[in-house]
Amino acid sequence: MIKFEDAVKIILENTKTVGLEKVFLDNALGRVLAEDIYADRDNPPADNSGMDGFAVRYEDIRGATEENPAVLDIIAESKAGGELVKVKPGTAAYIYTGGLIPEGADTVVQKELTKVEDNKVFIFQEIKKGSNIRPKGGDYKRGDLLIESGRKLRPAEIGILSSVNKPTVYVYQQPRVGILTTGDEILDVGEPVEKLSQIRTSNTYSIFSQVLEAGGIPVVIGFSKDTPEDTERKLSYAKSCDILLTTGGVSVGEYDLVKDFVTKVLGVEILFWKVKQKPGKPVAFGVWGAEKEKLFFGIPGNPVAAMVVFENMVKPAIRKMRGEKKVFNPVIKAKLLGGYRRKKGERLEFIRVALEMTEDGFVARPFGKQGSNILTGMVFAHGFGMVEVGVTEIKDGEEIKVIIFDKSFMDGDLNA
Amino acid sequence: MIKFEDAVKIILENTKTVGLEKVFLDNALGRVLAEDIYADRDNPPADNSGMDGFAVRYEDIRGATEENPAVLDIIAESKAGGELVKVKPGTAAYIYTGGLIPEGADTVVQKELTKVEDNKVFIFQEIKKGSNIRPKGGDYKRGDLLIESGRKLRPAEIGILSSVNKPTVYVYQQPRVGILTTGDEILDVGEPVEKLSQIRTSNTYSIFSQVLEAGGIPVVIGFSKDTPEDTERKLSYAKSCDILLTTGGVSVGEYDLVKDFVTKVLGVEILFWKVKQKPGKPVAFGVWGAEKEKLFFGIPGNPVAAMVVFENMVKPAIRKMRGEKKVFNPVIKAKLLGGYRRKKGERLEFIRVALEMTEDGFVARPFGKQGSNILTGMVFAHGFGMVEVGVTEIKDGEEIKVIIFDKSFMDGDLNA
Repeated sequence: MIKFEDAVKIILENTKTVGLEKVFLDNALGRVLAEDIYADRDNPPADNSGMDGFAVRYEDIRGATEENPAVLDIIAESKAGGELVKVKPGTAAYIYTGGLIPEGADTVVQKELTKVEDNKVFIFQEIKKGSNIRPKGGDYKRGDLLIESGRKLRPAEIGILSSVNKPTVYVYQQPRVGILTTGDEILDVGEPVEKLSQIRTSNTYSIFSQVLEAGGIPVVIGFSKDTPEDTERKLSYAKSCDILLTTGGVSVGEYDLVKDFVTKVLGVEILFWKVKQKPGKPVAFGVWGAEKEKLFFGIPGNPVAAMVVFENMVKPAIRKMRGEKKVFNPVIKAKLLGGYRRKKGERLEFIRVALEMTEDGFVARPFGKQGSNILTGMVFAHGFGMVEVGVTEIKDGEEIKVIIFDKSFMDGDLNA
Repeated sequence: MIKFEDAVKIILENTKTVGLEKVFLDNALGRVLAEDIYADRDNPPADNSGMDGFAVRYEDIRGATEENPAVLDIIAESKAGGELVKVKPGTAAYIYTGGLIPEGADTVVQKELTKVEDNKVFIFQEIKKGSNIRPKGGDYKRGDLLIESGRKLRPAEIGILSSVNKPTVYVYQQPRVGILTTGDEILDVGEPVEKLSQIRTSNTYSIFSQVLEAGGIPVVIGFSKDTPEDTERKLSYAKSCDILLTTGGVSVGEYDLVKDFVTKVLGVEILFWKVKQKPGKPVAFGVWGAEKEKLFFGIPGNPVAAMVVFENMVKPAIRKMRGEKKVFNPVIKAKLLGGYRRKKGERLEFIRVALEMTEDGFVARPFGKQGSNILTGMVFAHGFGMVEVGVTEIKDGEEIKVIIFDKSFMDGDLNA
């Protein structure tokens, strides 16, 4: 039985990134960039106007005042996306935001300082030479590094990719994560109940959803009965996956075939079995594949334990495989309302808590029957409060560390 | 020109949820539940064992000690998913976690307190009657309300839906959000540059990605030139959308056709134009459709302004349409490193900041050229610091409110 921290360390030391692939921008959100992105052009590509107004030669507006305005013939127009026009001495061009600075012009006078009459513009004030011009390359130059490889693609990054004419981009692949639910008693949704002892699965699809959240590709391998034949057949379906998750079949019962069969069928080398944590003690981890590049997690069948193991152990591995650097859920300190007591302090315990953000910082409220194995106790939970080894009592209002798996409690309410 | 708070209020007062639809569980993550979910069976469905061990009659183990153990014939086996077996006086059954409690048995003795020899089990200790039995309906009863309509579906909720045999479920529809990019100068990705004044779009796909993040369905209506014909044609493509977003074409230039044409083509009733904020002043908002149930946002073409407007105004509307109650990005207080100064304090200003979570709370660092209209300044940003109306200076280390649009800065680093 190893410590939680050691288990996580072993997992991540044995986790490698998967390969690269090219994706279109509509599928790039949240993926991790695998190439450096450079500017294809200067930005702006040419001198242009930052205002609506008139493009003029500074010489022509020098000394202009309310009483003695500069009066210039309007001979052209420059709008965004338009042609390059010319301005000669004594003349001006209409110009709009984004319009090219006309040949000969060196200054843009904003509309508000002017008046137009009979195709002439009256300018009532001298402004600085070069005013309101956004210079070519002022934001960045062709060849500048704009986004470094390894960054996660968010809306801003995707906008930049588009602006440098990259409709497709190299990103890390997403690991395929096979989910095998084991146990004679487990029914898939839709299957008829034939025996009183049968239980409908919850883990299959809660884990499916956790894989989606973590950015992996869930593959439901199915349900295996507690027979060597069925276990062997279903495990063989996992061969194309990067990660195999099994639920059930890793505790001490005689019908626990999985741990032995993953070794026989897939060549899994088990690196640890059992972790000093509660819930989730009977978790197994191993590596397999030609270069031991694939991972195996034997996850307990208890639905709450399965959630804990996934969030703390499987999710960081999926994130590392897909190229992410921030692989762990946030850990914050929160005041624990009502406190918490337990008899033994041998294991690190994760207690379900609802979180709130207050003026005084985070507040955690234990939720649901903590000993319970039922998922309904997770409905209001946002995180797992950590009751450390050796601790048997936390007083009301005392601070504990909380691992957040759902950050939505921070969002603002419609009616607030 | 109205205040930011008033603008948000007007938007949400005019936003209604869209209809309902049934989705399969693999498409349900993040959707908002539109029906109450009840238990279809008792859970557990029958008395069953919480341990591996032996099912016995309490009468038979009463008074058992190390020296004087109870000795019972093993006559049956009860495993998870198995048949209901029987125990008679003087006998016991093997039982595994999840196995049905045999007829006649009332207590489960955990394996650790027993020894097996010659098909007999030796029990060395009396334990309480009823020990290790998980009673029928102990977690919840058939007909109990398990998840209320209106909750957002996370992995735990999806596991529960599966466990009550709901492969499909009613959720709120996602609004279709049309994106029309306007301006003669704007090129789509892949289009050849023919004039120096042409600019490649960034807004189209950054907004596309923001719509995805907000849980809407992005529809790229395309790019319209600054002519009445093209503007009219492209706007007509938006008729099937719940929300129309245009970028560009809402400032004061002569070529700003959009605001007039949305009224002509789609019957948009403009409810406000221009908000006392920076960036994002020239934003327009309106309603359209038979029951004014559809929304229109005219978003400025400046990419940073577009991001600000989307996060603060469009995202809450999308979220409300899809049934969410927490519609706003989180607002936290953070210490502003380096402080911030500006000349005028007339408008609420949003400054891009990178965020960090420290022992002392959140810390914000202004990022990129703040005046700039370029998206590259967003690459390291996680939030918008709010410089309130009337404030012209924030001192180094002073607290400001920050609207978070990217919570990933809270996650834990691989190498930490």
